[in-house]
Amino acid sequence: MLKTLEYRDGKLYIIDQTKLPTEKEIIAIETVEECFDAIKKLKVRGAPAIGIAAAYGVVLGIKDLEEDDFNSFYNELKKISKYLGSSRPTAVNLFWALDRMEKKALENKYKPVEEIKKILEEEAISIQREDEKICKKIGENGIEVLKDGYTILTHCNAGVLATSKYGTALAPIYLAKERGWNIKVFADETRPLLQGSRLTTFELMEAGIDVTLITDNMAAMVMSKGWIDVVIVGCDRVAANGDVANKIGTYGVALLAKAHNIPFYVAGPTTTIDLKTPTGKDIVIEERGREEIICGFGKQTAPSNVKVYNPAFDVTPNELIDGIITEKGIVRAPYDINLKTIFSGAGGEN
Amino acid sequence: MLKTLEYRDGKLYIIDQTKLPTEKEIIAIETVEECFDAIKKLKVRGAPAIGIAAAYGVVLGIKDLEEDDFNSFYNELKKISKYLGSSRPTAVNLFWALDRMEKKALENKYKPVEEIKKILEEEAISIQREDEKICKKIGENGIEVLKDGYTILTHCNAGVLATSKYGTALAPIYLAKERGWNIKVFADETRPLLQGSRLTTFELMEAGIDVTLITDNMAAMVMSKGWIDVVIVGCDRVAANGDVANKIGTYGVALLAKAHNIPFYVAGPTTTIDLKTPTGKDIVIEERGREEIICGFGKQTAPSNVKVYNPAFDVTPNELIDGIITEKGIVRAPYDINLKTIFSGAGGEN
Repeated sequence: MLKTLEYRDGKLYIIDQTKLPTEKEIIAIETVEECFDAIKKLKVRGAPAIGIAAAYGVVLGIKDLEEDDFNSFYNELKKISKYLGSSRPTAVNLFWALDRMEKKALENKYKPVEEIKKILEEEAISIQREDEKICKKIGENGIEVLKDGYTILTHCNAGVLATSKYGTALAPIYLAKERGWNIKVFADETRPLLQGSRLTTFELMEAGIDVTLITDNMAAMVMSKGWIDVVIVGCDRVAANGDVANKIGTYGVALLAKAHNIPFYVAGPTTTIDLKTPTGKDIVIEERGREEIICGFGKQTAPSNVKVYNPAFDVTPNELIDGIITEKGIVRAPYDINLKTIFSGAGGEN
Repeated sequence: MLKTLEYRDGKLYIIDQTKLPTEKEIIAIETVEECFDAIKKLKVRGAPAIGIAAAYGVVLGIKDLEEDDFNSFYNELKKISKYLGSSRPTAVNLFWALDRMEKKALENKYKPVEEIKKILEEEAISIQREDEKICKKIGENGIEVLKDGYTILTHCNAGVLATSKYGTALAPIYLAKERGWNIKVFADETRPLLQGSRLTTFELMEAGIDVTLITDNMAAMVMSKGWIDVVIVGCDRVAANGDVANKIGTYGVALLAKAHNIPFYVAGPTTTIDLKTPTGKDIVIEERGREEIICGFGKQTAPSNVKVYNPAFDVTPNELIDGIITEKGIVRAPYDINLKTIFSGAGGEN
């Protein structure tokens, strides 16, 4: 399996995802500026991976600070944190990780600065290890919906390259591979940004998993041939009623799966479950620029002045979802009740 | 509306479709070699348009023949015909048009060669006029499924650029526009070759029709918003039971339309109805090369050695089709009976 991020000898090594799938280049990040640049330029992407990178960015930023009283140190830390937060200002995990680093510093304010620096390095490592643990647990819970010999269809990239290890939607597939199961994957290319084509195929091939690339509009035909046993996709946000916002095209795949009686699962950490959002209708969908559609492959393929509709996400209603695979178990309908239960510690089916 | 092909003063003028959508260049074809080149390089494409171009290609080829006895002339004609037929050897309409030209010559074998040349020129013009008439009739019949204010979703390109005028799936839309109706269109970009993005948007914009471009995986979301009143697509072949082979992605669109209770229509001339093919299962689907998927338009977007599945067409089962719009009327279920009836002259509903 690829190593999306690796912290070693005071440096953060990442795969430069802007070079994928044609080049696999590992770059060493040694300064906070390089970390900012890597996040801003999407060299590292995927919500959990961005959070982890930012936490290490803080570690790199404070390393050479000469301030030895807490207040001065903390002021510098906050500047670094604010700077990193401006790299991708809509990424929730980025702020979550930066907040956590700041809080950890505050909690230890009476300790010597050099010790706090060590504690913050350990905190960043913890953030990464926790992500790995959560993803592995999603994989262990999700493997229940697979059997040896299964073929899975997935959409977009919810794999290693979006997290620290295992991914979310792809975690059960990696776990099945580790068990020696014969597992095949069909990957939707996922227009307009081609995450399926560029990233999912790449990381699965690196892990020696049999993957076939199709355009999004071929999924129905592949399903009708009986080639797909189960669909697993990631999620950006889960509403309290189980409606799921995920990469554009997910809703269509869910409808096609239903029409072919193929189970449809969503995988994600419980941090993506937002009980304060009652239903999918309450999720605001980001609309993106026209260039992604009219000039998707570096060459203009539509009239310059054509009207374009480019929503980045869609909402899959809960009735099309057979289960939501989390690190705490698989949550199934009725989602309004069972999503609450999982947070009360009772857990889903496991 | 665009003029895909125009024969004037002994020359064939076509829009060079390889330059679309960024340049609208009309080229004059004066020799059979130029005609061969235009067909081979997809400067003219779409089954009916290819047939028409080839018929004019024959006219251009025989123009300067000096043979004045029929047998020598006919031998040369057959050489020209064979040459044109080798430009795109899988295009059925190409051979149909070339056969028709050869037969017309034979029927008039006792007339002077100069007169036969004139007759063949008229025959090519007839082939074009008949195509226009058929497309217009498809439009007139199809307009019954539209209302003023409707928004239509279409897939691929079954428009003017594939025929001589009006197109098939787009014919009702052009007719509605001529009536002054307020009609809007959503065009699927249609991966991998982007006919929707490159051609459908272009020709509708040229005709002043409001068109919005989406990627294929956005169709479900657009439907769920209640924006689509009806889907109309073209067809490559209709089996005797009403199953329809059309551009890859059509089957998925049909399933999505069904899930949203949106009527789904197929439009095409009766020449695409093949009563000798019992069902869609009997239609062999062409699989195309990997480059179209991994290297969409000049830039590689997937690992070079990734497995790819690239079917050019899919089959939409008859139960998902509300009607097949032909020049003889709209054929509806039960298709096994009503498709036969239309050929007996009784016609469909009109």
